[in-house]
Amino acid sequence: MQSTTQNYELEEIDLLLTDANIATMDSNINAPYGAIENAAIAIKNGKIAWIGEQSTLPSFDVFATPTLSVKGQWLTPGLIDCHTHLVFAGSRSQEFEQRLQGVSYEQIAAQGGGIASTVKATRAADREQLFVDAKDRLNTLLKEGVTTVEIKSGYGLDTENEIKILEVARLLGEHHPIDIKTTFLGAHALPPEYKGRADEYIDLVCTDMLDQVVANNLADAVDVFCENVGFSYSQTKRVFQAAKKHNLPVKCHAEQLSNQQGSQLVAQFNGLSADHIEHLNEEGVKAMADAGTVAVLLPGAFYFLRETKFPPIELLNQYKVPIAIASDFNPGTSPLCSVHLMMNMACTLFRLTPEQALAGVTRNAAKALGLDDRGILKVGARADIAHWQISHPSQLSYQFGVNKLLNLWILGRIN
Amino acid sequence: MQSTTQNYELEEIDLLLTDANIATMDSNINAPYGAIENAAIAIKNGKIAWIGEQSTLPSFDVFATPTLSVKGQWLTPGLIDCHTHLVFAGSRSQEFEQRLQGVSYEQIAAQGGGIASTVKATRAADREQLFVDAKDRLNTLLKEGVTTVEIKSGYGLDTENEIKILEVARLLGEHHPIDIKTTFLGAHALPPEYKGRADEYIDLVCTDMLDQVVANNLADAVDVFCENVGFSYSQTKRVFQAAKKHNLPVKCHAEQLSNQQGSQLVAQFNGLSADHIEHLNEEGVKAMADAGTVAVLLPGAFYFLRETKFPPIELLNQYKVPIAIASDFNPGTSPLCSVHLMMNMACTLFRLTPEQALAGVTRNAAKALGLDDRGILKVGARADIAHWQISHPSQLSYQFGVNKLLNLWILGRIN
Ligand SMILES: [Zn+2]
Ligand SMILES: [Zn+2]
Repeated sequence: MQSTTQNYELEEIDLLLTDANIATMDSNINAPYGAIENAAIAIKNGKIAWIGEQSTLPSFDVFATPTLSVKGQWLTPGLIDCHTHLVFAGSRSQEFEQRLQGVSYEQIAAQGGGIASTVKATRAADREQLFVDAKDRLNTLLKEGVTTVEIKSGYGLDTENEIKILEVARLLGEHHPIDIKTTFLGAHALPPEYKGRADEYIDLVCTDMLDQVVANNLADAVDVFCENVGFSYSQTKRVFQAAKKHNLPVKCHAEQLSNQQGSQLVAQFNGLSADHIEHLNEEGVKAMADAGTVAVLLPGAFYFLRETKFPPIELLNQYKVPIAIASDFNPGTSPLCSVHLMMNMACTLFRLTPEQALAGVTRNAAKALGLDDRGILKVGARADIAHWQISHPSQLSYQFGVNKLLNLWILGRIN
Repeated sequence: MQSTTQNYELEEIDLLLTDANIATMDSNINAPYGAIENAAIAIKNGKIAWIGEQSTLPSFDVFATPTLSVKGQWLTPGLIDCHTHLVFAGSRSQEFEQRLQGVSYEQIAAQGGGIASTVKATRAADREQLFVDAKDRLNTLLKEGVTTVEIKSGYGLDTENEIKILEVARLLGEHHPIDIKTTFLGAHALPPEYKGRADEYIDLVCTDMLDQVVANNLADAVDVFCENVGFSYSQTKRVFQAAKKHNLPVKCHAEQLSNQQGSQLVAQFNGLSADHIEHLNEEGVKAMADAGTVAVLLPGAFYFLRETKFPPIELLNQYKVPIAIASDFNPGTSPLCSVHLMMNMACTLFRLTPEQALAGVTRNAAKALGLDDRGILKVGARADIAHWQISHPSQLSYQFGVNKLLNLWILGRIN
């Protein structure tokens, strides 16, 4: 192993972290976790100015440079949750209780339950309430070492309320240390007022809704729930075409409950990611590999829905499709606000290795968001760095519950 | 609903909690969760002096009484984790990684892995290290609203080290706000130095080890891992007989991987609990019902080992066997330090209702520890009370991750 830059002079460094073991997650470094042991990182202007073996550290002004010894513990990239629905109102706990008491889905739907109840509560909620609840959730993730979170709309399902959710997400991005990326998911479910008129609703999504979202710069990407209980292949395609017109990247809730070929479709549009993908087949995997589309696995929803069909991990590995892991935090199918739990579940349920799990919430999660400035600790990347009280990075996926985070820097600022 | 005491005069109360919704978990109160709405609790000398509807609150000196309004939120009994192995040294994360990389159990065992590695690390650890690591784990549980924890020995497997573990557990009980109950589990696994001589090891457990444990008052109960990979029915029986001689209650790791009739055996000894019990049959359920032995379900181990055989929940309900839920926190089969996650897993995986899950970590967990002074909020019980920012107690089992604990009192003292 060697430093990734040579002959760099360390001038006016903002912070130097020394005596570190660093899981860089850089696949150009030929070691598990892209690890550099006995290493140092220099931070300047929120970015990594130098990283490498400490013995090769260039000379710098020891008196002018704030220095922190990591004392032989581990640094990793800040974690990234690349698929969440964390702006919503209401709780579905009493539905959860009813289901476990034997009440059927149909009865719950008939009494206004299911996603309809979250839509109703979210429409009724003001921005302040949505902001406060979402902030608590972001704080939970921050304490786990998460530095970037994607937030989808999709519980408004009309122009006004989809805008409201995305505005709250943007506001969180301004007022919370976690960096927020937003995704417009107007095509999440059919709102009750469009019952039987899904194509008309997709018209609304593709025109009025998307126009206003774009006009107000509220979305970094566009997503569709492509499923037999969601929107069809051709409806999904119309949304992707509209997104393309606005130069917005696309992603897809695909192949969760059945194979609708949403993954091939999103790959055709050079999409960022296909998410869930339990029912993905080899053809879809190939299409994703060719397009560079990331596979986002959501083990929380798999667990919570007690799915038995596993995503095609071996095929994804065979075709070298990058695998990301996310919480899918949402009130209906994954009420689990924890990236560490997802890492454990990815290993326990999906048999990923701890290194794959960590890559899934760093390097590959960044790729799933179209971001090349984070997810890997290397020169020029954002100084989003987590400092853990662990003896080996596999511990991050193995033991759950006891918080091992010691320090967290976002853009070089401690949180 | 009515107050559980009448005509009680509130004199020199230490703390009055008002405007509460209380999930008392008292099965004598005919409402889900034994709930009393618009209620109050008075605490005196660490115990509950009065509880009931606020409108029936006796007169008291409003100026002399510290009062806290719960503001319409919920109080529950402090949570109880009745089955843990949380005093141990070392980490098994690299084994976990190896297994996921395809290394076989046999190879890992041959290189000194598995429980042998935890035994080796725990034997090598001094009291201070064990104490510090265990304290971090207890603090994690405390933040979740846990007020009583059982801790088993079982990683020493010789007299000196079993004593060391139990002494650390007792020390934690003195220096940590959580109330600790200890269990001697010398018969957890066969130590390497007794290979092929299990009966001789059981001799040691029943004589020298147990004698010293009793002489130093280090255990509140005795446990055995009765399994084809653990100890046989007759070896288990010998340990129970020895425990009986010392008037120590017994419990059993039973029917986890196969049916060894450990549950019937522990019931014969009027044991506190049979734990795991995935392979329990109707005969065993009947025996437990007759003896008042609690069924302790350990969904974390079920999840982590990817078991497919479910504990016989319907039979347990049919025969009215009380069901407790515990973390089984341990480095080999349940590295999950969270009672809330266990509540979610009990509902999600085992299809318990949220009310059963909450009873499982309060009322029935207390019963599993032989404690009748906690687990229910009623007059005379310990004032171990958790105050939650929730709109319904089902939320405690449903949403995981965002900490909803606002306040926690143990023996009436806030933590
Ligand atoms: Zn989703
Ligand atoms: Zn156990």
